[in-house]
Amino acid sequence: MFEARLVQGNLLKKVLDAIKDLLNEASWDCADSGIQLQAMDNSHVSLVSVNLRAEGFDKYRCDRNIIMGMDLTSMSKILKCAANDDIITMKAQDNPDNVTFMFESPSQEKVSDYEMKLMNLDQEHLGIPETDYACVIKMPSGEFARICRDLSQFGESIVIACTKEGVRFSAAGDIGTANIKLAQTSSVDKEEDAVIIDMQEPVTLTFACRYLNMFTKATPLSPQVSLSMSPEVPLVVEYAIGEIGQIQYFLAPKIDDQDN
Amino acid sequence: MFEARLVQGNLLKKVLDAIKDLLNEASWDCADSGIQLQAMDNSHVSLVSVNLRAEGFDKYRCDRNIIMGMDLTSMSKILKCAANDDIITMKAQDNPDNVTFMFESPSQEKVSDYEMKLMNLDQEHLGIPETDYACVIKMPSGEFARICRDLSQFGESIVIACTKEGVRFSAAGDIGTANIKLAQTSSVDKEEDAVIIDMQEPVTLTFACRYLNMFTKATPLSPQVSLSMSPEVPLVVEYAIGEIGQIQYFLAPKIDDQDN
Amino acid sequence: MFEARLVQGNLLKKVLDAIKDLLNEASWDCADSGIQLQAMDNSHVSLVSVNLRAEGFDKYRCDRNIIMGMDLTSMSKILKCAANDDIITMKAQDNPDNVTFMFESPSQEKVSDYEMKLMNLDQEHLGIPETDYACVIKMPSGEFARICRDLSQFGESIVIACTKEGVRFSAAGDIGTANIKLAQTSSVDKEEDAVIIDMQEPVTLTFACRYLNMFTKATPLSPQVSLSMSPEVPLVVEYAIGEIGQIQYFLAPKIDDQDN
Repeated sequence: MFEARLVQGNLLKKVLDAIKDLLNEASWDCADSGIQLQAMDNSHVSLVSVNLRAEGFDKYRCDRNIIMGMDLTSMSKILKCAANDDIITMKAQDNPDNVTFMFESPSQEKVSDYEMKLMNLDQEHLGIPETDYACVIKMPSGEFARICRDLSQFGESIVIACTKEGVRFSAAGDIGTANIKLAQTSSVDKEEDAVIIDMQEPVTLTFACRYLNMFTKATPLSPQVSLSMSPEVPLVVEYAIGEIGQIQYFLAPKIDDQDN
Repeated sequence: MFEARLVQGNLLKKVLDAIKDLLNEASWDCADSGIQLQAMDNSHVSLVSVNLRAEGFDKYRCDRNIIMGMDLTSMSKILKCAANDDIITMKAQDNPDNVTFMFESPSQEKVSDYEMKLMNLDQEHLGIPETDYACVIKMPSGEFARICRDLSQFGESIVIACTKEGVRFSAAGDIGTANIKLAQTSSVDKEEDAVIIDMQEPVTLTFACRYLNMFTKATPLSPQVSLSMSPEVPLVVEYAIGEIGQIQYFLAPKIDDQDN
Repeated sequence: MFEARLVQGNLLKKVLDAIKDLLNEASWDCADSGIQLQAMDNSHVSLVSVNLRAEGFDKYRCDRNIIMGMDLTSMSKILKCAANDDIITMKAQDNPDNVTFMFESPSQEKVSDYEMKLMNLDQEHLGIPETDYACVIKMPSGEFARICRDLSQFGESIVIACTKEGVRFSAAGDIGTANIKLAQTSSVDKEEDAVIIDMQEPVTLTFACRYLNMFTKATPLSPQVSLSMSPEVPLVVEYAIGEIGQIQYFLAPKIDDQDN
């Protein structure tokens, strides 16, 4: 028996919005400690990792570890039927063929249940090595989304250059060149609005716009995003999922541009 | 001479929005008692009936009964030119070739008139028998629209099952199955938000999503909708048109699914 | 050295929105007195004239007259990257190959610069004769935009007839005929909302909807528009650009319809 109840059900709606463009299908690993999803995106370039801790749910029970392979397009369609203030419960048997999503309105006068068939998906569990990053940039998630969107008009790649003073995002193409510089925030009034750089050594890396733009679909989850970079290792773009977990996107830097 | 003046002109705009997707053209029957429209939808599956009482208008004069056949796409384009707070007047001669719509801004500083040719349409006046329905469900119109929209993702039909405790809307298809249950409201604070069931005997009927979704275009007309059902007779979906009348949609249940 | 700094940078964003559908490319003439742009639209029917006075900028320097030919689609893409409250600075050398746009956030924590290649464009400087117009109509710009949009559903041309009492806009076509009459405002509470007519003699002229609708892209620049008309000369549609200048559109009347 698996059952996970989340009063703040719209967090789950936002998680699906944050992954459904990258992943057509994926396996949710449910264990005593919580729920995890890890998968390469459809074109096998980037990696998505979602972690939802058991303690974050309002009710959580997982008698046996189960793996639920889901069509994320269908799951997203089902979650779109939940209102933003609905309580969402996921339920499954121990060897499940189906998963049930139950949505309860706060007044309990509307209760919906949706049953979806599960899929058998190849499991490719990917070890993500713990790394100390040369730079970790915390910045407003809306600002990061806007920068990625603006620069993708100019070229297919974005260069991110981080120094103690700030971060510079650049792109170049037929229209011309574009540089956006963010200074590290000197005095922090509101932590969410601040740009904070934790740097061991300066790093300059180049990434594909297309993927960065897909990662920013997670923006509604959290007012802040963190970018972790080290030379020659994948960038990590991380958003908190309320108090219950986080979503991480991994993307390897472009090698050619890095030589410049 | 026919003349009908409506200070709350946006009601007429909303009536057109509620019928223009179902009907390309239709006849407006104008008589001393008011204005009526009755027509099968373009695919001859459902029936639409609009009733506007003479007393509901701010000025109403109809010397002789007239029938005005109109292209509803053109009529809708004309009404889109009226601002939401405009006063709308319809005018025609006794044997009219044309109808005139006049829009006056509340300040009277902007006055528009639009003249449209009338059409000769075949008349098929359809008698709608008075029926005592086994179940009459009153519910918030926005909730009904949302349920129809949500369930149409799952299949082409919606099963509506009404009992004393409440109503269940269901659909099934490739993605899975969906059930939405609304409990009868126990204590009514605000009548518009309540689900109220007036039941002689329980009824379960199946309807085509496509038409239910078109009926919900009338949602802006009224905060409440009523669904009247009896076995083997058409469902009636009814919305009030302010204080001046009502719009009713009739849709026969699907026979095959009903056997299940 | 050319440098023009505008604290109210969103005015420049709105100017581009007001011309980019009419003009693919155009030359900006920068001189000591300010910046001017004059060009026929892409189909060589109407004329656009933009005037930005040097005194209107928060900093303005132009050592030598320069002409900067720009791809307005690219320029518009760049200006879309400026936030509405950004300070915008344009910079170029004396014989420039490039122009630089710099956007500064009010807090100065985000600074962006965009460099764009300039183009060599044929110069066709068009003398616009000073004319005394028979009628000058001042009216709310939103009302003018709405009238042009509404009437373009009825036909390809709009007849504008101006008398001492007011203005009548008319169109006719397959759907029927449409007339919108605006009375001259008797007592003016708020100048922006008023319809004010300055008339030597009544004028009736016919214009192509398509162009009038493109001119109304300037609506966000100013709450008021002025229409200047005389028989057989082009209509002038003029919007103020904040305190710093104005944009004017010129459109010749249709001859055939005028004969009617």
